[in-house]
Amino acid sequence: MGRIFKERTPVNEALRLFLENISTLRKTEEVPLESCPGRVLAETIISERDVPHYRRAAMDGYAVRAVNTLGASPANPVLLQLSDQIEEGGAIWVHTGAAMPEGADAVIMVEDTATAGNLVEIRAQVYPNRNVGQIGEDIKKGDRVFEEGHLLRPCDAAVLASLGFDRVKVFKKPVVAVIPTGDELVSRKKCVDVPPPGKMIETNGLMSALYVKKWGGIPRCTEIVPDNPDSIKRAVEANLDADMILLSGGTSVGKRDHAPEVLAALGKLLLHGIGASPGKPTALGIINSVPVVCLPGYPVAGLVALYFFVRPGIRKLAAIPEVPEPILKRRLAAKISSKIGYVNFIRVAFEGDKVRPLTGAGAGILSSVAKADGYVLVPEDIEGYDEGEEVDVFLIE
Amino acid sequence: MGRIFKERTPVNEALRLFLENISTLRKTEEVPLESCPGRVLAETIISERDVPHYRRAAMDGYAVRAVNTLGASPANPVLLQLSDQIEEGGAIWVHTGAAMPEGADAVIMVEDTATAGNLVEIRAQVYPNRNVGQIGEDIKKGDRVFEEGHLLRPCDAAVLASLGFDRVKVFKKPVVAVIPTGDELVSRKKCVDVPPPGKMIETNGLMSALYVKKWGGIPRCTEIVPDNPDSIKRAVEANLDADMILLSGGTSVGKRDHAPEVLAALGKLLLHGIGASPGKPTALGIINSVPVVCLPGYPVAGLVALYFFVRPGIRKLAAIPEVPEPILKRRLAAKISSKIGYVNFIRVAFEGDKVRPLTGAGAGILSSVAKADGYVLVPEDIEGYDEGEEVDVFLIE
Repeated sequence: MGRIFKERTPVNEALRLFLENISTLRKTEEVPLESCPGRVLAETIISERDVPHYRRAAMDGYAVRAVNTLGASPANPVLLQLSDQIEEGGAIWVHTGAAMPEGADAVIMVEDTATAGNLVEIRAQVYPNRNVGQIGEDIKKGDRVFEEGHLLRPCDAAVLASLGFDRVKVFKKPVVAVIPTGDELVSRKKCVDVPPPGKMIETNGLMSALYVKKWGGIPRCTEIVPDNPDSIKRAVEANLDADMILLSGGTSVGKRDHAPEVLAALGKLLLHGIGASPGKPTALGIINSVPVVCLPGYPVAGLVALYFFVRPGIRKLAAIPEVPEPILKRRLAAKISSKIGYVNFIRVAFEGDKVRPLTGAGAGILSSVAKADGYVLVPEDIEGYDEGEEVDVFLIE
Repeated sequence: MGRIFKERTPVNEALRLFLENISTLRKTEEVPLESCPGRVLAETIISERDVPHYRRAAMDGYAVRAVNTLGASPANPVLLQLSDQIEEGGAIWVHTGAAMPEGADAVIMVEDTATAGNLVEIRAQVYPNRNVGQIGEDIKKGDRVFEEGHLLRPCDAAVLASLGFDRVKVFKKPVVAVIPTGDELVSRKKCVDVPPPGKMIETNGLMSALYVKKWGGIPRCTEIVPDNPDSIKRAVEANLDADMILLSGGTSVGKRDHAPEVLAALGKLLLHGIGASPGKPTALGIINSVPVVCLPGYPVAGLVALYFFVRPGIRKLAAIPEVPEPILKRRLAAKISSKIGYVNFIRVAFEGDKVRPLTGAGAGILSSVAKADGYVLVPEDIEGYDEGEEVDVFLIE
């Protein structure tokens, strides 16, 4: 009681410390190509095949020996026999993608020909290999097609299929235990009506679990744990087989805030208190190499901690490669005031081609997030932005 | 044989025409909140509750009547009795989130107090409602919380949970039939070894199905259909209960290209041939209000048609709202040459802080997409971009 935050670690420093303590899981599994998009390759793919594995026609037309078309033009067409004796001056019909007949080294586009009975009139000359796809022109046997760590997309699944794969080895998704804590919470599954005064429906655990899933983890949601150190300790211990643990609530400095002390008792408390607003009461730690994030119970503060620490934490655990974050440049429809010393997470809504900051709503007001399309981060050393200033907007996924 | 493309509809015009012919499906279903992210709300949510539904303490501290703290300061603290008789000058301990006791109208932060036996020393004065969350301060009964058509996110699921929802009404995902056509194709499920010359493993259907899934549809993959009009006709007719049909292959102007003519026979061929490179042989049509896209068989051309028409088509069918497309500004590491009269889809790979165009790979070279991180679109009326020029890069998902 009466404790205050002794420290307030800057967000970047907190993240660096957290990630430094997280090791990438290297557990792998095989998945069918149908479910590989979004997964991370756990093997380097070296082709054991040539693709295509045969010389193919790249156009609809006639397969010929190029030498037999020398000098052909619309005014002076060359006549070839429809025959599979290509070497002796024959021409044979091929579709795009068809195997080139033995002896043929070029394809005359159908547009440059005419047929008359058993003869083909050739109206253009071609050079050898014209309109022919060579063996291995797409992928050669021995080519490194994908490196380990590649994030697979639908088009990559098609490439793997062309190489003869039906399944592929990927990194397992990390299991993230989500433990909601708080005497005031009731499960919505057990609560059809409005709960009694002093009781709230649990929502942060649901939100956390759904973000975990979106960001590439497998959420494992526990029952609501009451605000006492022993219960929290037991719940954490029961989940130390997970790859990450999220404790929601009980992270501040009040009588009922036990999450950080439990974390310190069971493992190492890396820090408690970050330079973010909302989000200050966040605590981070490690228990037997399992990263633990104590998320503030105020929902907007919890969301900030999810974005700042849980998302990069999952990425590191799961070896998900960085992709450039989509950032929208927008002008502000109203000024933003910000607290010096804190990264301010400002919810904003699109308004025409501008964004309007949703101010006035505290960290406890979840509906302000529902109204927000994105957020703007104001750095620690800036007092805010003026109306009309251009800012970087991150979308709220 | 010998047919050529009579028309070449500009991409934007083709898309406008296609979307004009697509009606949004309005079929709905209920899903549990756990699976609502990414879905589109099919009802407007008007709150039937106040959130919070009771006056709550916004801080850990003592609930009091503000009037009883008048003039309190560290130098001149006010002493109050620990008692639930608030109106008579008592103070009572409250946690953040706890229901405010009857008669109390403010909370003194614990940091501004000290206790001595049965007394609380109050070291700051507070005004009425200080540190008290009012009934409905987050959401009021009767508030419009979400409009129909809202794309649900994890944070929105939490808001819905706080309103007492356990399930929510969303628009059904459109079912998209994916029909690969081509005599040269073999299913990878039936082909463990390298197929014989002239035969290729089917990959476009897999790629299309996985993009359909990613973009919010439910793919329904059929068997490979041979290149004859009757077989294609039967396959299309068997899938007219779907919400969209993709025919892959057979869209060009060769002997074996029957997809557009089947489309014209069964319904309305809107256009055949678009001003895109690759992607020119794309055809679009409607059969009994079911939109049909004929995707070129060359895989990169097929990908272009997926991006240009299938993605927006699914969005319209499913009422998925537009979100600003993430675009990265990057300088070119090499020049791009482009064909006038066509939107050129240029594959690019990140190279430091620049992008390098992957030129030299034709539309048949799927591995060029695997190597690409994104693409640049060069408009019809531009011949290309110089090395060092800044371009808009779209990520390949």
